[in-house]
Amino acid sequence: MQWLDQSIMARKGVAGGKSGQEHTITEAEQGRYHYVYGPFAEPVLTVDPGAVVTVETHDAFEGKIRHETDSPTQILNFPYLNPQNGPIFVNGAEKGDCLAVAIRSIRPRGPQPCGTTLIMPEFGGLVATGDTALLNPSLPERVRKLEVTAENGVRWNDRITLPYQPFIGTIGTSPEIEAISSLQPDYYGGNMDLPDVGVGAVIYLPVNTEGALLYLGDCHAAQGDGELCGVAVEHPTHTTVQIDLIKGWTFRWPRLETADFYMTIGSARPMEDAARIAYRELVRWLAADFGFDEIDAYMLLTQCGRVRLGNMVDPKYTLGASITKAIAHA
Amino acid sequence: MQWLDQSIMARKGVAGGKSGQEHTITEAEQGRYHYVYGPFAEPVLTVDPGAVVTVETHDAFEGKIRHETDSPTQILNFPYLNPQNGPIFVNGAEKGDCLAVAIRSIRPRGPQPCGTTLIMPEFGGLVATGDTALLNPSLPERVRKLEVTAENGVRWNDRITLPYQPFIGTIGTSPEIEAISSLQPDYYGGNMDLPDVGVGAVIYLPVNTEGALLYLGDCHAAQGDGELCGVAVEHPTHTTVQIDLIKGWTFRWPRLETADFYMTIGSARPMEDAARIAYRELVRWLAADFGFDEIDAYMLLTQCGRVRLGNMVDPKYTLGASITKAIAHA
Amino acid sequence: MQWLDQSIMARKGVAGGKSGQEHTITEAEQGRYHYVYGPFAEPVLTVDPGAVVTVETHDAFEGKIRHETDSPTQILNFPYLNPQNGPIFVNGAEKGDCLAVAIRSIRPRGPQPCGTTLIMPEFGGLVATGDTALLNPSLPERVRKLEVTAENGVRWNDRITLPYQPFIGTIGTSPEIEAISSLQPDYYGGNMDLPDVGVGAVIYLPVNTEGALLYLGDCHAAQGDGELCGVAVEHPTHTTVQIDLIKGWTFRWPRLETADFYMTIGSARPMEDAARIAYRELVRWLAADFGFDEIDAYMLLTQCGRVRLGNMVDPKYTLGASITKAIAHA
Amino acid sequence: MQWLDQSIMARKGVAGGKSGQEHTITEAEQGRYHYVYGPFAEPVLTVDPGAVVTVETHDAFEGKIRHETDSPTQILNFPYLNPQNGPIFVNGAEKGDCLAVAIRSIRPRGPQPCGTTLIMPEFGGLVATGDTALLNPSLPERVRKLEVTAENGVRWNDRITLPYQPFIGTIGTSPEIEAISSLQPDYYGGNMDLPDVGVGAVIYLPVNTEGALLYLGDCHAAQGDGELCGVAVEHPTHTTVQIDLIKGWTFRWPRLETADFYMTIGSARPMEDAARIAYRELVRWLAADFGFDEIDAYMLLTQCGRVRLGNMVDPKYTLGASITKAIAHA
Repeated sequence: MQWLDQSIMARKGVAGGKSGQEHTITEAEQGRYHYVYGPFAEPVLTVDPGAVVTVETHDAFEGKIRHETDSPTQILNFPYLNPQNGPIFVNGAEKGDCLAVAIRSIRPRGPQPCGTTLIMPEFGGLVATGDTALLNPSLPERVRKLEVTAENGVRWNDRITLPYQPFIGTIGTSPEIEAISSLQPDYYGGNMDLPDVGVGAVIYLPVNTEGALLYLGDCHAAQGDGELCGVAVEHPTHTTVQIDLIKGWTFRWPRLETADFYMTIGSARPMEDAARIAYRELVRWLAADFGFDEIDAYMLLTQCGRVRLGNMVDPKYTLGASITKAIAHA
Repeated sequence: MQWLDQSIMARKGVAGGKSGQEHTITEAEQGRYHYVYGPFAEPVLTVDPGAVVTVETHDAFEGKIRHETDSPTQILNFPYLNPQNGPIFVNGAEKGDCLAVAIRSIRPRGPQPCGTTLIMPEFGGLVATGDTALLNPSLPERVRKLEVTAENGVRWNDRITLPYQPFIGTIGTSPEIEAISSLQPDYYGGNMDLPDVGVGAVIYLPVNTEGALLYLGDCHAAQGDGELCGVAVEHPTHTTVQIDLIKGWTFRWPRLETADFYMTIGSARPMEDAARIAYRELVRWLAADFGFDEIDAYMLLTQCGRVRLGNMVDPKYTLGASITKAIAHA
Repeated sequence: MQWLDQSIMARKGVAGGKSGQEHTITEAEQGRYHYVYGPFAEPVLTVDPGAVVTVETHDAFEGKIRHETDSPTQILNFPYLNPQNGPIFVNGAEKGDCLAVAIRSIRPRGPQPCGTTLIMPEFGGLVATGDTALLNPSLPERVRKLEVTAENGVRWNDRITLPYQPFIGTIGTSPEIEAISSLQPDYYGGNMDLPDVGVGAVIYLPVNTEGALLYLGDCHAAQGDGELCGVAVEHPTHTTVQIDLIKGWTFRWPRLETADFYMTIGSARPMEDAARIAYRELVRWLAADFGFDEIDAYMLLTQCGRVRLGNMVDPKYTLGASITKAIAHA
Repeated sequence: MQWLDQSIMARKGVAGGKSGQEHTITEAEQGRYHYVYGPFAEPVLTVDPGAVVTVETHDAFEGKIRHETDSPTQILNFPYLNPQNGPIFVNGAEKGDCLAVAIRSIRPRGPQPCGTTLIMPEFGGLVATGDTALLNPSLPERVRKLEVTAENGVRWNDRITLPYQPFIGTIGTSPEIEAISSLQPDYYGGNMDLPDVGVGAVIYLPVNTEGALLYLGDCHAAQGDGELCGVAVEHPTHTTVQIDLIKGWTFRWPRLETADFYMTIGSARPMEDAARIAYRELVRWLAADFGFDEIDAYMLLTQCGRVRLGNMVDPKYTLGASITKAIAHA
């Protein structure tokens, strides 16, 4: 990740993008995991900008789905889903700042098969749900337990093995006064399920409250665009992130940087609103920081913008809009 | 409100729909108003089923918009909008119960002109917003201060006076673990902006946490379907509600009863999902409690269901679907 | 319909809202019914403004569903659904004009039971469809045949009889160059399924091509808001309309006038876009013809606008937004 | 395009994927271009399967926007936009068949600057439109004329040059009885604006009427995902396609094959419905032709499906969902 030295995090961060003190949040240190993003929980850790934190994340079901014969509806207890580590209090962070989080590594942990995906009633992109509320009968439940290793990938069956391309499904800062389900993505991040939030990327999150209060969890070993049935290859991990703080960089929705591109992330329903949010933020970013006229940015993105669909299953849908650095810096 | 003796509240309520002890929540007793619906605030009042509570509600701007020359964007401080009274802890209420709230009276309070409506940027049904995120320029701000009395109605201008048809714009119970902005309507009620939640109606709310934790506020002196520009005739009030508790009546979304009809209320985006939620709940209610076959209820509502659009401006849109009692009980 | 003398049709129509020559379009005179709204069909009738035309409409299934044991999927042959009478060529009508159609009477015709409603797969407001394309199993088919008379209403079952409140489900002019399925509502009218298009109303339709080319059909004996399962009480009728022409009254979407209110009609997906269209058209109408400032009209409709949901089942959803004449003319 | 020998077109086509007779449709041969996809126009050419046809396409504005000082609203005459070549009658094609169209080459034609993009009122992904009907003021019009060559790409300005990545913006067969604007994408193809419909791909289109009646036009020299402002780099071209016919391969929505992946294409509003259509079609294709259990396909696509956003600006939005051949054939 050589490019990181030239990242926005390196150029503007309080810690200059340099690694500082190392921390851990093991399962034991975490104790109770959290199911909301909010300011009401006590920080599990307080760090300075530059901190490198290794977290033991649970899978989205907190490890309760162990066998392919398990019944999700009998085992899972809504709304106690998608357990999150944190919150991490970042010294110096105030409303109006930006929290930069570089994703350094994600490794599977726990006994095999450590990957889980499943079908459960009223959840998913191709079924009736609580919101798209219909009278059709549900699909039957189905559970798949999958062997997942960094070396060999995700073993789907005898014929198909998918590469291990892990990312953080849910990550964000706390809202200012709300505490919102970790199942939801929104302006502060949350359950975006966007594969670009993977190893080597830096995500920039708006700080809405003192200390930023970073939460994360829900790592996916592999996921297609849209997370179609609502459950990627969920797995528990050791996830290492480097945290920095950019004072006074104020924006509304999460942003992301990789070696190759800049991305803005919108979450909303209907899906076109997620796309509008993402692209409008990108237009404004190009105008604010890259010297583009706003209308010119709008016309240029028409010719070269890229869109990644994160999820089409959560309470809000998530899309990222991006432009290559080659063009943005031309 | 003679029909109340035959209401579901009267037939199934712990207090049998009978008035019990009277309480007040004045501005002074309320102290700090709330901007989220959640379980983290201390109850301002604890009551038994049957309680009759008179509340001094603020308008949605907490009285800060005083003159037609005021600038909303300079005065208002998001997310500290739509202040709510409560929470009221109801003894005996547990998750899975239903809280019944009969709306007994709503009267304007405070000096005239006590009504306020306004246009502010990025908010409203016919403008680009934070979610429907566009590049068009905004409309100019505009504030209207309106004389509102129960006797003479809402004086729009020299030619037009609208009848005083007050209702509670925002009312609901607490989510179980979330604390959600009072600007949002959802499964627990909240900012539904549905004119049917007026004097003479009983609203039935799902109880999600111990004590139910009832919040209310945001009374409107008049409002059209959809609350088009996002701001009805907002006004501070004395609002009196009677609270009852129905043990073990479990459902997901708010329901409403008047002398003439039963209504179910859905809130979602896109708007068709709000309509689907409302109608599916009504189908299920007819099947569960009125002896209809589910498919037959679906076909019958096709011929006689009624829809009321509450809001087309909040983070979720709200619709009520209803059937007359004459048909439901035929 | 005494108010008609004061209607827009009477004040601006070429025929001054007066009845002219009487015509019929019987089944035999119609010959082949039409399944698209377009300019490619030969007119079945040419009339002058003022013409009063009595039409023998088919039901939406062209009478093919005769028994409750019939299978819609076996009998119906998509896209040959929703047969329409017409087109009627109106002398003098040119693009940019308005066609006024006063609905004078609708009477059931044919042997009893002449009403039909049904459930078929992938169609309806509470089921997965071709557009809301899901994997859930379908509901079973079900057909209901219903006795419908003007005197006794719609006999649902031994306990429930609904009043006969007939309206024209599908009516409109031809697009300029397109020929669009009669299942779809759009800017020219079409399959709006809006109960306000009933006896006593005048609908104003934009003229998009020479002669206007009026089509109509699909009369409903009763229908709830939204036409929930997609099939109202369909029935064949004698429908009588009076046609007038308003030269140079140019607008984009259908409008409607009754004794009591003015309405604008929008059709789109998602549903909020239908609401936006309808309300924006109403704002503009108030500004153009009733002396309102546009922003003032927007704020006033917020307090007194009314919304009627036509359909939530067709390729586009339809909503009407209205204001009372009392306020519009204040 | 060596892989073409193994394509579905080669394996199932009447012509076995082999090139047959060569044809041209020059501007002169085309004569009048078309603005609807429908069965009412006379074929401009009749071919056998295997035909290789080189077409002189116009740009979406029929070449009328010549200078950056031109005013689109004054020059363009809705609905006479997006002119199409065709229709091409394919011998032997009947309803229920599939038309395979391999895109062999696309080359710019005409004097430089031959590329055009522009902003016009009420059109585009980040502005209020006729459907998302709002009261905000419009953006100003703006026209960009761009030099486009196959060798040097699209010259945006002194600093930015985009690669020439041409594709066919609008291509499809005729509906059975409708004639639909060439601005709209739908089940028969049309204005999908999907960059994957480029050189080297084979698009499979459902045949809805005798002869299939292929239309095409609207080639783009470059386009980002979503075609954000609604106007890609439009340019006139020489476009060469090879046409084949697959008897009895019946499906509802367009499909696409490249060397690397299979794609299904959905068009709808709201955008999630386009995604649902595309993914449901892909699930069904995997189940029908690749030996997958339907639920297993649904779960697998959750982990490895890819989504490409075509347009977020047309009357329906278009998305493609895809799976790599490596996985589909594993």
